Amino acid sequence: MIDFKKLREQNLAVTKKAVKSSLARDLLAIQAINCIEDIDKVSSILANRLREWYGYYNPEFTKSIHSNEKFSQLVVSMSRADLLKSLKLDEAHSMGADLEKKDLDAALELARNINDIYSFRKYLEHYLEKAMSDICPNTTAIVGPLLGAKLLSLAGSIKRLSELPSSTIQLLGAEKALFRHIRGLGKCPKHGVLVQHTLMEAAKMKDKGRVARALADKISIAAKVDYFKGNFVGDKLKAGLDARFKKK
Amino acid sequence: MIDFKKLREQNLAVTKKAVKSSLARDLLAIQAINCIEDIDKVSSILANRLREWYGYYNPEFTKSIHSNEKFSQLVVSMSRADLLKSLKLDEAHSMGADLEKKDLDAALELARNINDIYSFRKYLEHYLEKAMSDICPNTTAIVGPLLGAKLLSLAGSIKRLSELPSSTIQLLGAEKALFRHIRGLGKCPKHGVLVQHTLMEAAKMKDKGRVARALADKISIAAKVDYFKGNFVGDKLKAGLDARFKKK
Repeated sequence: MIDFKKLREQNLAVTKKAVKSSLARDLLAIQAINCIEDIDKVSSILANRLREWYGYYNPEFTKSIHSNEKFSQLVVSMSRADLLKSLKLDEAHSMGADLEKKDLDAALELARNINDIYSFRKYLEHYLEKAMSDICPNTTAIVGPLLGAKLLSLAGSIKRLSELPSSTIQLLGAEKALFRHIRGLGKCPKHGVLVQHTLMEAAKMKDKGRVARALADKISIAAKVDYFKGNFVGDKLKAGLDARFKKK
Repeated sequence: MIDFKKLREQNLAVTKKAVKSSLARDLLAIQAINCIEDIDKVSSILANRLREWYGYYNPEFTKSIHSNEKFSQLVVSMSRADLLKSLKLDEAHSMGADLEKKDLDAALELARNINDIYSFRKYLEHYLEKAMSDICPNTTAIVGPLLGAKLLSLAGSIKRLSELPSSTIQLLGAEKALFRHIRGLGKCPKHGVLVQHTLMEAAKMKDKGRVARALADKISIAAKVDYFKGNFVGDKLKAGLDARFKKK
């Protein structure tokens, strides 16, 4: 007779081992890129709060600077008088209220936290650069680590990315517009997240579709090479694209 | 003839001074409580990311703990083997994948950032405690610093809070339900943010409305005393409420 209890235990052990070894490194890259997106959301929530809060103390400077990252750095590192001097304004004529030190400290503590979050974002970018050149060197050579990880995240894994036709890769991230088009509403999208690529940014409006198609084509080749661990061809693919689109 | 240019300049100077001195400390408390709410949003976004990410490495522990704050603290301070031991599990039987150090470090760095955000939240709570007992000691005595600041933020300022009738205070934060009721849909709400008060939490379902009404009544008195800088009566008001509702 079969010993069902023992069979069950052995089965469990085998399954656990299979789960344990199923994690590929591309999943970690996907977590990292999703984390970067979370950080972008989070830092903008907190930076808006800081602008409102610190704006009581120094409204002129708050209005003058657009970048949230620079804003929270400068706020911590320089005094109000120096910041106003850099705008050629006089502290005596400022509309900012004079806060007590303990009140100002709370706002500056928020700025310090925001700075920490921004430097964590840099750390993650650096981590992704290294990880992506291990996981899919060819794809990364063409689109860079951040956009490459974004494509991985949209496809789900390097395996799935390598299986996608280049027309699907071209529209990754534009699913909403694509299905709206299929339902008969709106135009067909020409590109998804690929729009972030430097070649796309440089292209004229009427060329965007062509550039996106060519990019997706090369990415599809690169992803296949990456998944089946072929020789490195990323530089050649990239050089071909550059030669075709960069001089224009 | 009137020198319009000079008049304009003087007018500007006067207005700037008026803007400068218009900041009352209750606005700072409102910023602080709004910041705490932002932090709650932010920390939950990041903690969910951490759970997903760290869950690859240690799924059993990730599932076993409910509090996000404790989770991210323990993850940083203890190794996987120790965490599993505390659950009476063996590391060899875990389903967690073995991550390389550099991959694990990225997830732990996220946990450290989350911990910083939680400790900033504690700092803000502490700051609010002190600030609120300066700004409106009576209201704070009845509802505590956090709920008090929340009421201030909903009313807009201590001046406006002191002008509100107690029936409005009772429903601060329940505007959506109230206007739905006025349009003829749904029941009239019995309380807004006051539901967070300890007396409300302890009250039975059928008593909630009565407790909220009594609370709002005392808050309305306390806010008036606070705004007009009267003598401290918060302890008496609180004692009255406790005597009425606490023994049940």
